[in-house]
Formats: sequence, C-alpha cells, structure tokens
Amino acid sequence: MNILEKTCQTIYPQDSRARDKAQERLDQLVIPHGALGDLMDVAKELAGMRRSLDLDFQKKAIVTMAGDHGVTAEGVSKYPSEVTIQMVKTFVAGKAGINALAKNAGADVFVVDMGVNGDLDDLVKQSKMINKKIGFGTSNIATGPAMSIANARKAVEAGIEVANQLAPEYQLIGTGDMGIGNTTPSTAIAAVITGRKLEELTGRGTGLNDEQLKKKIDTLRKILDINRPDPDNGLDILAKVGGFEIGGIAGLIIGAAANRIPVVLDGFISTAGALIAYKIEPFVRDFLIFAHRSVEPGHAPMQEILGCRKPLLDLNLRLGEGTGSALAMHIVDGAVCLLKDVATFEEASVSSADT
Amino acid sequence: MNILEKTCQTIYPQDSRARDKAQERLDQLVIPHGALGDLMDVAKELAGMRRSLDLDFQKKAIVTMAGDHGVTAEGVSKYPSEVTIQMVKTFVAGKAGINALAKNAGADVFVVDMGVNGDLDDLVKQSKMINKKIGFGTSNIATGPAMSIANARKAVEAGIEVANQLAPEYQLIGTGDMGIGNTTPSTAIAAVITGRKLEELTGRGTGLNDEQLKKKIDTLRKILDINRPDPDNGLDILAKVGGFEIGGIAGLIIGAAANRIPVVLDGFISTAGALIAYKIEPFVRDFLIFAHRSVEPGHAPMQEILGCRKPLLDLNLRLGEGTGSALAMHIVDGAVCLLKDVATFEEASVSSADT
Repeated sequence: MNILEKTCQTIYPQDSRARDKAQERLDQLVIPHGALGDLMDVAKELAGMRRSLDLDFQKKAIVTMAGDHGVTAEGVSKYPSEVTIQMVKTFVAGKAGINALAKNAGADVFVVDMGVNGDLDDLVKQSKMINKKIGFGTSNIATGPAMSIANARKAVEAGIEVANQLAPEYQLIGTGDMGIGNTTPSTAIAAVITGRKLEELTGRGTGLNDEQLKKKIDTLRKILDINRPDPDNGLDILAKVGGFEIGGIAGLIIGAAANRIPVVLDGFISTAGALIAYKIEPFVRDFLIFAHRSVEPGHAPMQEILGCRKPLLDLNLRLGEGTGSALAMHIVDGAVCLLKDVATFEEASVSSADT
Repeated sequence: MNILEKTCQTIYPQDSRARDKAQERLDQLVIPHGALGDLMDVAKELAGMRRSLDLDFQKKAIVTMAGDHGVTAEGVSKYPSEVTIQMVKTFVAGKAGINALAKNAGADVFVVDMGVNGDLDDLVKQSKMINKKIGFGTSNIATGPAMSIANARKAVEAGIEVANQLAPEYQLIGTGDMGIGNTTPSTAIAAVITGRKLEELTGRGTGLNDEQLKKKIDTLRKILDINRPDPDNGLDILAKVGGFEIGGIAGLIIGAAANRIPVVLDGFISTAGALIAYKIEPFVRDFLIFAHRSVEPGHAPMQEILGCRKPLLDLNLRLGEGTGSALAMHIVDGAVCLLKDVATFEEASVSSADT
C-alpha cells in the first residue's frame, strides 16, 4: 500500500465531543450568546480538529507550492512563464507579498519546488527551499494530459511528505501557490467538479482584458474536450487538467488532516487543490478553514462544494502565494484567544440575560 | 472659543500627494496590479491620513467608552442595566472579549467612564480607567432628551481630551463601547441621519425576540416623536437621542482626526458616534477605517453615509467593546507591511506583464 492510501486511512472527522465542549464554554463567556459570530464558529471548528480546547497555534507555517504550466503556450496569462522562477527566488529572498504578510502573522514560509521550469538546485542545497520537483512544468493541457497518473500520485505524495515534515513543529498550516498560468488548470478542475459552465467560472487571473478572457474560455473548452477527466477520480482530474503545485497542495491538505493540523486554505488555486484532496478523501473537509473569497468568479462555487458558505475574509484578493491564508491566521488566533483568555459570566460575576 | 471648535479648525483632509506616492509604490510592487485588493486601498488611505509612506503603528490603543441609558426603563434590552458597570470592571480586570482580542492585536485597552450609573472612583484612583463622567446614565429618551446641550458638548470634548492624551504615544486608535441599552439611541441617531425607516434600521441588539423587537421599534418611534432632533446638528441629535459614551466616541474621532491618527471604527454604536462627529465636522470621514459590518441591520446604511461601501471584516459580530476594531487592526498592519516590506518588480528583477 502506498503512502497516499495509508495516510487517507488515518484521517478521521472532527471530534464532536471537543466541539460540544467548546460550544459549552463559548456559551458561558461574558459575551451575549453568539455575539462574536463567525469567530466563535472557528473556535469550535478548531477544537473539533485538534480534539481539544487547549489550543496552541504558536508555530504557523505557510507552504507555497510552485510549478509551471505548459498551457501558457496558449497565451492564457498576462505574465511570461519565467516569472514563476523569478517569484520563487523573490520568496526565498523574503521580498514578496507573502513574506511581508507571513511575517506580520508570525508564520514561517516554506517554498516548495513541485515542478518549476528551471534549475533551483542552488537554493535547495542552501536549504532555502524544499525540493519535490516532479518535472520542468506540466505538458500543455490544451493538447493532452498535464502529467501521467503516476506523476499525479507522486505530486500528492510529495505534499503529504511536506505535511509530515512540518507536523512535529507546526500546529497550523496555510496553503499557497505560485505558477504562471495556474488559474487555467484550476478553472478546469472547478468545471469538472462543480459541473458549472466555464463562462460562470472563468476569471481574469492576473488581469486579462475581455478578448483575452474569451480566449481563455475557448482554451478551457478545448482542455475539457480533449482530456475528459473522470469527475469522481481526484488523481485522474489532477493528471489530466491539473498542475504539479496543485497536486502538492492536495497532498499537503491530506497530510495535514492526517496529523489533525488545521489548514488555512488560501484562494482560487489552493481551493482547486482542496477539491482534488476532497475527491481523494472527503474527510479532509473537516480540517479546512477558508481564508478568503477570491475575485475569481469560480471561487465561491468551489468553496460551496467544500461546505463553505462564507470565508473569513472578503478583501478582493487575487494574488495567491498564501497571502490570504497569512491574513486569515490573525482571525484564527482571535478565535483561539476567546477560549483561552475570556472569563465566563460566573467567573466575572456579571449578571446574565433575562430569560 | 471652546475646545470643540478649536479642534475642528485643525482637521484637514487626507494628503493627496502622499496618497499618490503610495499608489505609485503599490503599482510597482512584485504583485500584479491591484492583486491585494482592499489591502492596497487601506495602505493608500493610511498614507493620506499620516501624510507619509513611512507608516508606523507599533503603538495601538482601543478606547472603550462606557455609559448607561435611562431608556432601559422601557425594556429595550435583554440585559439589566447593572451589567454596564459589571462589564466595565471585567474590562479593567482584563477578562472580557475586548481584552483577549486587543492583546492578540498588540493594542492597549483604555476604559473610559463617560456616564456609568455607579461609582467607579476606586478604579479611577488606581489609574485603571479614565474618568470623564458626565452623569449617572442619561435620562430616558422615551420621555425627553438624553442630556442637556451643555452636557452633549462636554461629552464630545471629553472624547477630544482622551484623543489628545493618547496622541503623543499612540499612532492608531480603535473605538469601542459599553452601555446596556445603547443600540436604542444608536438606532435613533441612524434614523435621524440616514432618514430611513425604523423597521429597516432596528435590530435585535444582544438578542431580542420578535415581540421585544416590535416593542423596541415602538419605543424608538416615541423617542423620535418626542425629541425631534435637528438632522443637521450633531450636538442637538446627541443631546436629544444620544448617550454619554456615544458623545465620547464622537469626540475621540474628532480629536484623533485633529492629530492625524487613523481611527479603526468598531460596529453599530461606534458608527453612531462617528455620524455625530461627521455632522459636527465632515472632514473626520477622511480618518476612518471601517473595521466590520455588524449584524445590526442599520449598520450598512450608516456606514454608507460615511463613505464606506465595504468594511474590512464581515464576521457576524455584534458585541461592541471594540472587538471588531481589534480584529481589523491586523488587516491595518498587513496594509502597512505592503509598503514597508515588499520589493518592486525592478528591485526583485522580476519580469513585468505584457502590455
């Protein structure tokens, strides 16, 4: 049995007793019933994930998975493909958006080469990034599958390995991505799994104009026609229309869930990874905290499939990298401190409501 | 000339040159144009408020203004009036929701007695809270005005004094409130200033049922009929249908704006205070960062008057105390670090978009 199947066998749903105990405590706090809204719901979820009310998320990691995409040959992105490797170097140098926001959230950034089209050996040798390279970019999904089924499995298992590597030290993991062109495979995944029309799901990525958007939709139609992925088979979808970093994110989520580590899920690309993970192992849903709602129109229906009605933030973000996760980690910390630092009505000798 | 008029004369709008410079820098960051959405807008606003790109919000204060309300005699709240003083003591003891969330945000909490119905001398003597007491709760606004015009002015000027006291040390101020019954005067203020119907504006506060909600609307109708405040006169509205802590919040905002200190505005009650401040001095709008959208239905139309289409957070909060401000301060920090810690495309040697 492979690492993937073994890992999935160790994923259990949230602990309902811990959830109930958290709710009981929240109901007694010197706060009118439910008056801190979604923050209280997050506290309950976290207790369920960790099987405990004694929550500690001092050590936080943002994992930014990077990979290139053969489909950029179709002109689906405004930026040239070499920006992927340039941005990876910027992450390692600590100078990108994710570095600033992760630092602000007290999170460490781990950059993973899942399949960047270029040589990153020097940075790997200096231990500045994690090497899980499956290939030098995917094949062009407008002409055939992105990768073999064997490589799809490898990508997911690489993500599991990263989660297992972080699990002894980190209590909270945020997802992130970098890969020029990766809104196209993510939209293809969204179309296969949500069953919605491409026109409803396809967005402007880093800033396409109307004509470019139309071209992206046409390319996506071709991608789905040529590949015809099985909507119930996560690895098949990943192999046919996915990406190496998307597979890495799927594996990271599966690995985190197996370690009962809550995953703060970033935007559009990360959610495509989560959908792949969910198709492989539905229980992963129980370990997801939805950071934000992206500007990409496909994001909301994808989140709905995963059981999310309303994410924590809605700030018109569309960057990726893990930036939404980093911002949302502050809200997670806020939820935790409700359970830790607030007194009950009884402890504080405050009169309760008339009933 | 009084402190109020003098202070208003020193309030200027945001600095458009600093805003333009911030936008220029944001456009050059290794982030596709506008891809961090609202976070980038906040960065620009902050630069305009502070007249500088060199932003520093290391020292943050949450000011929680407390006062009691004679209108509780009408049964408009689920909680008894003595909860106000009990909660004030809980704030000072550091055990309430605001203490936990302010600590999480790295903010100091200042509790101000604007008009609590009880003796807080001991806590004031121990320097654990600020004494600006105008009275032992307002008069019942269902039978006449809340306070005299002289006391309305005193309340606003007390808020200005608090802002001036904090200004040398703090660079960011969040508003907060405590006062059993204070959604009723706040809804009255909303009705006078937005011109909307009471049915659209009135909410359940800390948790009224349908019958209690209907009674609250009837009481509000009586309040407006009896008092008939002048919709263009902030002090008149405050005196007739306001509250001591609401006046304190209005003054705090005016004082912060005069010191070019950004104000992170909390929920429903704080926004009522901001509307009073805005009616006194319209330029205060330029110094407001809207923390969140409350569950109270009147909140959105009130925020619209102040120029806010979408606040930073929407987490179904309805607690007050400054809890929404504390949570939103993390987003403010995130906006600041974009300007401070992210490289430009040129600095990072990353290719820019095809144009």
